[in-house]
Amino acid sequence: MNAYRPAEIGMPLAEVDTPAFLLDLDAFERNLDRLDASLAEKKIEVRPHAKSHQCPEIALRQIARGAVGVCCQKVSEAEAMVDGGVPDVLVANEVVGAPKLKRLAALAKRARLAVCADDAGNVAALDEAARTAGVKLDVLVEVNVGANRCGVEPGEPAVRLAQSVARSKNLRFAGLQAYQGAAQHLRQVDERRAAIEAACARVRETTGLLAKAGIACEKVTGAGTGSYMFEAVSGVYQELQVGSYVFMDVDYARNDWTESGIPRFEHSLFVWSTVMSRPAPDRAVVDAGLKASSVDSGMPRVWEVAGAEYVKASDEHGVLKLDGGARVAVGDKLKLIPGHCDPTVNLYDHYVCVRGGRVEALWPITARGAVW
Amino acid sequence: MNAYRPAEIGMPLAEVDTPAFLLDLDAFERNLDRLDASLAEKKIEVRPHAKSHQCPEIALRQIARGAVGVCCQKVSEAEAMVDGGVPDVLVANEVVGAPKLKRLAALAKRARLAVCADDAGNVAALDEAARTAGVKLDVLVEVNVGANRCGVEPGEPAVRLAQSVARSKNLRFAGLQAYQGAAQHLRQVDERRAAIEAACARVRETTGLLAKAGIACEKVTGAGTGSYMFEAVSGVYQELQVGSYVFMDVDYARNDWTESGIPRFEHSLFVWSTVMSRPAPDRAVVDAGLKASSVDSGMPRVWEVAGAEYVKASDEHGVLKLDGGARVAVGDKLKLIPGHCDPTVNLYDHYVCVRGGRVEALWPITARGAVW
Repeated sequence: MNAYRPAEIGMPLAEVDTPAFLLDLDAFERNLDRLDASLAEKKIEVRPHAKSHQCPEIALRQIARGAVGVCCQKVSEAEAMVDGGVPDVLVANEVVGAPKLKRLAALAKRARLAVCADDAGNVAALDEAARTAGVKLDVLVEVNVGANRCGVEPGEPAVRLAQSVARSKNLRFAGLQAYQGAAQHLRQVDERRAAIEAACARVRETTGLLAKAGIACEKVTGAGTGSYMFEAVSGVYQELQVGSYVFMDVDYARNDWTESGIPRFEHSLFVWSTVMSRPAPDRAVVDAGLKASSVDSGMPRVWEVAGAEYVKASDEHGVLKLDGGARVAVGDKLKLIPGHCDPTVNLYDHYVCVRGGRVEALWPITARGAVW
Repeated sequence: MNAYRPAEIGMPLAEVDTPAFLLDLDAFERNLDRLDASLAEKKIEVRPHAKSHQCPEIALRQIARGAVGVCCQKVSEAEAMVDGGVPDVLVANEVVGAPKLKRLAALAKRARLAVCADDAGNVAALDEAARTAGVKLDVLVEVNVGANRCGVEPGEPAVRLAQSVARSKNLRFAGLQAYQGAAQHLRQVDERRAAIEAACARVRETTGLLAKAGIACEKVTGAGTGSYMFEAVSGVYQELQVGSYVFMDVDYARNDWTESGIPRFEHSLFVWSTVMSRPAPDRAVVDAGLKASSVDSGMPRVWEVAGAEYVKASDEHGVLKLDGGARVAVGDKLKLIPGHCDPTVNLYDHYVCVRGGRVEALWPITARGAVW
C-alpha cells in the first residue's frame, strides 16, 4: 500500500489532497439520529451492516447508540470488527471451506458470534469446526424471502435445515436470516412495502412450521435501508440490518420515500476530487474515476455544482458534462456522491472526517479488502 | 488492511483460499511473447501502462524484454513503480495541485520522468514546481485525438501549448500524448482502424505545425491493447502504451481481432472463488462479488465450467445462472475472468502466481490504491 495520506488532522478541507474520502460528521451524526428517532417507539433491535462502512470507529458509535452489534459478510470482515472492539457480530452469510470455518470458530472465542447456513453439508462442516475449536456456534438458517440469492426455500426446507442445526451437538439454532435484498432499490414505496409483505408471509409460514416442530425461533433478522420500516412494524422481524443509512449514496437517493416512515437520510459521504482538465466549454475532467468511486450502481453525482454532471468514468478520470452556466476551473476541488457506498468504501484506507471545514479525524477502514 | 493471506508459496492451487487473484504465469508469459513477436519487425518502442497491473514485478519483466519504461496515471502510482526499481516513468496524465506537483518534481530526481499537460496555467505550475525542486521536467502536450477526455485540440491549440512548454525555463517539450482511449473497445477491427487513422490525421496536423514553428517533436505516444498495431504501422507514433495485453479481460475479449495484426492474447488473470450456496437447480452463488471483481465493463465470466454464467454481483456475492448440464456443488472452487482488469487489480494486495497447479510466487500490487 502507498503510504501517502491525503489529509492530516486539523487541515482545512480546501487543503486536503484528492481523491480523498470525506465523511461529513454533522451529516453522519444526523443520520444516526434520524434512524434512532424513526425507531424510537418500535420494539425492534438494530444490528447495522458493517459491510457498508468496514470501520470499527463507526460500528462502535452505532453500538454506543444501542445497536446490539453488527453484521458482516465475511469472516475477515468480522475479524476486523472484533479486532476493533466490536463484541457481537453476525456473519449474515454462508461461510464455506475449512480455513474460513476454522477462523470463524476461533473468532467465537473472542466475541459473541453467529453465522448463517443454507445447506446441510455446510451445517455438518460448521459443527465439525465448532467441535474442533471447542465452541458452540450460533447458526441462523438463511431463508430465500424473494431475493433469489442464497437461502433455502421457506417452509419445510427451512424447517429441515433448522432441525439439522438443532441436532448438531456444537451448534445452536439461533433464528432465521430473512434479508430481502432485491426489495431495497425498488423505487416506489408501494413496491418495497409489497415485497416485504411477501417476505413476511414466507417467514410466517416457516416460523409456524418451526413452532409445530417444537423448534424455538428466537429471532428473525433482515431488512436494509430501503425497506427497514416495513420489517420494523411487521411483527415478524426482531432485528434490522440497515447499513447504507449512515452515508446515503446516489442509488438509494433515487428511491421514493414518501410516507414510507423512513426518514430522508442525507448524503454524508463524498469523494473529494480535483478538476484536472478543462478541455472544452462543455467538459471538465476530475481525478476520480473507477479506482476512486464504484460505478456498479451508476455514476457518482456532483455535489452542489450547478450544471455539472458526471457522465463517464475511466480508471483515473471522471468526465463531467457542463451546461453553459457551470463554473468549473482547473484546480477546483469538488465533492462527488458515490453511486454505491459499499464497494466505494472498499477503495479507501481512511475516512477523512470533516466538521466545520476542517479535518477532525481520520478513521481507518480496517476491513478494506477483507473479502475472505 | 487485513493481514490474512489466501495463499502461500508452494501451496497447491486447490488449497488457495478465496477470493484470490490468480495469475497464470504460463499464459502471462505467452502474452508477453505474443506482444514481442507482433512487434518484432516494427520500429516502435513499447512503454506498457502500469495502471493495468500496478505491480513493479510485472513492470520489471516488461522492461527486461525491451520496454523503455512504463506509463502511470497518478504520481503515487509512479512513486510505487520507482520504489519498485522502475527507472523510467511517463505520467500519461495531467497532474494538478501543489502537493502532487511537489512530489512529481521530487520523483524526477530519482528516475527518468515525464508528465502530460493540456492547460497553460498547469504548465506554469509545473515550471514553478520544477524550479523549486531544482529539476528540469519533461512535458508532453496531451492532444485530444478523438477520445474527448483530456487534451487540447490538435493543430494551433496544441502548438501554442507546446510553445508555452518550450519557453518554460524548467521544462522540456518532450512530445505529444495522443491516446485514443475511445477506440480501444470498438468491437470491429475496421472501426478501430478508422478511429486510429483519424487520430493520426489529428497528430499529423499538429506535428506539421510544430515543425513549421521550429519546435522539435521527438515523440508521439499513445495506443492501447485494442488498437496498438494500427499506431505501430502508422509512421506517426513512436511509442505504444499497451496495458491490458498481459491479462486480457472479458471486455477486451469481446473485440474482434481478425486480420488486425494484433495477436489473440489469452486470459491469464482470474478471480479464484468458492461456491458458497447452491440454493436452486439453476442457481449457484460464489463468494466473489463487487468487492472482488469490478463490473464497470460487465460481469466476470466463469472459466471452463460449461453452462454456468455469472449474471449478478452484489457486494460479496456473485450469482451464477446454471443450465441443466452445469455441475457445480457447494465448496467447489472456480475461476472467474474479470470484466475489466484495471479496477479489479486495484482490489487486491497480491497476485497469486500459479504454474503447474502450484503457487510459484506472490507479487505485491504495491500501487494498489495509489490514486493520488
